[in-house]
Amino acid sequence: MYEDRIRCAALRGKITTAKEAAQLVRNGMRVGASGFTRAGDTKAVPIELARRAREEKEPLRITLMTGASLGHDVDRLLTEAGVLERRLPFQVDTTLRKAINRGEVMFVDQHLSETVEMLRANLLGKLDLAIIEAAAITESGGIVPTTSVGNSASFAILAEKVIVEINLAQPLGLEGLHDIWIPGRRPHREPLPIMSPEDRVGSFTIDIPPEKIAAIVITDQPDSPSTVLPADEETARIAGHLIEFLKHEVKHGRMNAQLPPLQAGIGTIANAVLSGFVDSPFEALTMYSEVLQDSTFDLIDAGKMVFASGASMTLSATRQEQVLSELDRYRDKLVLRPQEVSNHPEVIRRLGLIALNTALECDIYGNVNSTHVGGTHMMNGIGGSGDFSRNASCAIFATKAIAKDGCISSIVPMVPHVDHNEHDVDVIVTEQGLADLRGLAPRERATLIIDHCTHPLYRDVLRDYYRDALKHGGQTPHDLANVFAMHLRYNATGSMLPEGAVGNVANA
Amino acid sequence: MYEDRIRCAALRGKITTAKEAAQLVRNGMRVGASGFTRAGDTKAVPIELARRAREEKEPLRITLMTGASLGHDVDRLLTEAGVLERRLPFQVDTTLRKAINRGEVMFVDQHLSETVEMLRANLLGKLDLAIIEAAAITESGGIVPTTSVGNSASFAILAEKVIVEINLAQPLGLEGLHDIWIPGRRPHREPLPIMSPEDRVGSFTIDIPPEKIAAIVITDQPDSPSTVLPADEETARIAGHLIEFLKHEVKHGRMNAQLPPLQAGIGTIANAVLSGFVDSPFEALTMYSEVLQDSTFDLIDAGKMVFASGASMTLSATRQEQVLSELDRYRDKLVLRPQEVSNHPEVIRRLGLIALNTALECDIYGNVNSTHVGGTHMMNGIGGSGDFSRNASCAIFATKAIAKDGCISSIVPMVPHVDHNEHDVDVIVTEQGLADLRGLAPRERATLIIDHCTHPLYRDVLRDYYRDALKHGGQTPHDLANVFAMHLRYNATGSMLPEGAVGNVANA
Repeated sequence: MYEDRIRCAALRGKITTAKEAAQLVRNGMRVGASGFTRAGDTKAVPIELARRAREEKEPLRITLMTGASLGHDVDRLLTEAGVLERRLPFQVDTTLRKAINRGEVMFVDQHLSETVEMLRANLLGKLDLAIIEAAAITESGGIVPTTSVGNSASFAILAEKVIVEINLAQPLGLEGLHDIWIPGRRPHREPLPIMSPEDRVGSFTIDIPPEKIAAIVITDQPDSPSTVLPADEETARIAGHLIEFLKHEVKHGRMNAQLPPLQAGIGTIANAVLSGFVDSPFEALTMYSEVLQDSTFDLIDAGKMVFASGASMTLSATRQEQVLSELDRYRDKLVLRPQEVSNHPEVIRRLGLIALNTALECDIYGNVNSTHVGGTHMMNGIGGSGDFSRNASCAIFATKAIAKDGCISSIVPMVPHVDHNEHDVDVIVTEQGLADLRGLAPRERATLIIDHCTHPLYRDVLRDYYRDALKHGGQTPHDLANVFAMHLRYNATGSMLPEGAVGNVANA
Repeated sequence: MYEDRIRCAALRGKITTAKEAAQLVRNGMRVGASGFTRAGDTKAVPIELARRAREEKEPLRITLMTGASLGHDVDRLLTEAGVLERRLPFQVDTTLRKAINRGEVMFVDQHLSETVEMLRANLLGKLDLAIIEAAAITESGGIVPTTSVGNSASFAILAEKVIVEINLAQPLGLEGLHDIWIPGRRPHREPLPIMSPEDRVGSFTIDIPPEKIAAIVITDQPDSPSTVLPADEETARIAGHLIEFLKHEVKHGRMNAQLPPLQAGIGTIANAVLSGFVDSPFEALTMYSEVLQDSTFDLIDAGKMVFASGASMTLSATRQEQVLSELDRYRDKLVLRPQEVSNHPEVIRRLGLIALNTALECDIYGNVNSTHVGGTHMMNGIGGSGDFSRNASCAIFATKAIAKDGCISSIVPMVPHVDHNEHDVDVIVTEQGLADLRGLAPRERATLIIDHCTHPLYRDVLRDYYRDALKHGGQTPHDLANVFAMHLRYNATGSMLPEGAVGNVANA
């Protein structure tokens, strides 16, 4: 059985149940699991682990590292079972998030390119076990990843033992889509030889000694579909501002007509904005990104995009079914790489990417908070946004100007948590407009951001703040005594708007 | 005359006075001048420009870009004469700093690797004029830089016209010390082929068409000596903690015995700490840094350092005289590069540098303020600290735990300006101790930083803050209403210490 999926005959004897395989996990272990933005995650062993932890009396607490977020409620189940002692580098689960914010799970929020770099340098301890979803294992024992590569390759290489979940729901046609390249150990590391998004520099499979594979589990479940919302009026306006800006850049010779390769962060806004490029004048677009969402395939299908490089494909249910059943149509237009390659500063700087990421909030000087609600409570994590924005030729952050029916302004005097500072933020765009901050001093940025990006509901509030701040002087004027007044007012009253101000967006 | 200094005979006719050459500068121009941390700056033309601006009735305001800071009070003189409309990417002048903080000069504080990258991409406008100090001009018109390369090469390449200041006080022996490599234009850029600090990949000279050289001025003044202070008890203790840490890393196999190449920021603390390595057990050290200070030569002379790569040499008066008169002794151990190469993310990540930079203040979660006094007023600029800390294998920030006789704590609840955030700060070290933050969640970092790095005067203040913050919950607990209480108290009373607390460090 499974001759086409486990082509290395010697390994077929390793097939076992998820329950048996989960016995390999012991209290205190460090475990690396496949999965990047819900794609290519393991579907059976972690869930068995959660079940076992609930049933057993012995403590069972582990450090879990992944590529990025998982599907199938795995983070919820593991959290509820009390299995997660430490989690890195990214998550999006509501239950886990609450446990993190109560201080019950130690969450290490990392640039996604850095986790395996640190693991390789022995800075995160020894990796005891890797659990990797695969479409197949080749004759020589090479592991064929599925819809994501993420950190799977380095996890498998660095772990003492490996559990492989062969997922029959992932088509065999995925083989050949991946490009596995792993940086050498310092100090004798060579350049990463990618000169263009379509360059292939590695192998199709994750190559480890077959004897490291301790168990193989057969599964048959598709990836959890993406949860992004469809485009709406605001995201269409954000896309419109952005396309105008890029046309202007091309017209003035600062970008070529094809545009530099695009990166777009995970989520509704980036996905919707990217979809907006279907109606743009740009042709022969390419992507060098971490996650490929529906929008990537919208652009490919529209003949607008000629190549997309990513670390995962995270698609809606419909798109997932269509893409996986028509892989041959996309085969010469796609590659999936390890996330330390998709997010590598070296390549991002060399290619001069346009990086489009989402801000939770940004301040009048261009500092961006991507992670901490109210400056304290973790939402998801920084993800790859820092890898890209620091090194891109143009780092764009998009957000709707208000949230919660106008009770929250996404533009504030000072962000209470900084993930991307003024040095790394080139452009801020909301449905209200776009601020091009490149080459500007903070006082110039403040005027531009307030005038172009803030919602009319908050424009005067922010102008008043800035006018008062100017009295304190400085390169970056602030009134520290009142700098978080909007945040404190929101905590106290449920709205950032001053008392007496128009309290509802509909009245603005 | 000057046959040895201007070997391209055709160019000798371009020799003129500084006063004449300064006439090439016109109102509204963008000017790029050599000079990096006081080294290799132009000594005559900018000063003539300041004189002319004071005397003329016509407005004369320019954008001045440099490598980094200048010597010879050039920034002061230009500021006093009202010449500076816009200044980037770094400065250290008291008079200019005040004008910046009054909002009179627009100061664009940039990662030092990015200025010419932006200029090349046409994001900072057209460069009208470059003014470059040189030791000589070769037969073919190649410009031999002096004690810094900084941004000089790209300024000369990108500017419409070039003024060269041939400085007779800079020895001809500097020729051959430089390695000029300029990245190609995107999207067809090749890897930067440096695999080790001593790799030479470019040419000895800045090669531009000789006809672009519009004027040559002869000068005869040494560089302004560096202003760093000698090591003291605190810097010795910082060095001690750091060396213990590095020995521990080597012992546990996380670094090899030679250590990865070192980077050290400009200034007293980094210089003193690096000098402390003379008494360390480490051998065959290398540097891949931006500025080479006295400490580099201390280490070379002590036989501890085998090679140092930088963008400039900024030395005390005594060291300057000695090094420049004994260049042959150091020739095979030194190279000076463009700052976009010395500070390039690609090379920094590949080599896995240990980056040592100075914090103005840092917070209990490991965010660092390098630039803004009180969160508002510019000190010098971020310099290369971001280029290095983001991409180093180990990013260390050093500071004395207190300043102004204990009235200021360098560890605060939240920094009011973030130059380096928690994701990019691996280690914080003060004379009190060292906190290794790698792989830790914010709550773990807070305890470690408070326990290890804070001065006893402030330990309870910070513990109290953190205990209160915990009541608010979150990944990064904060009490936003009181987060800047220490800063506000300092503004009001001249001390961050609460009333009733021991007010003087001597009593602690």
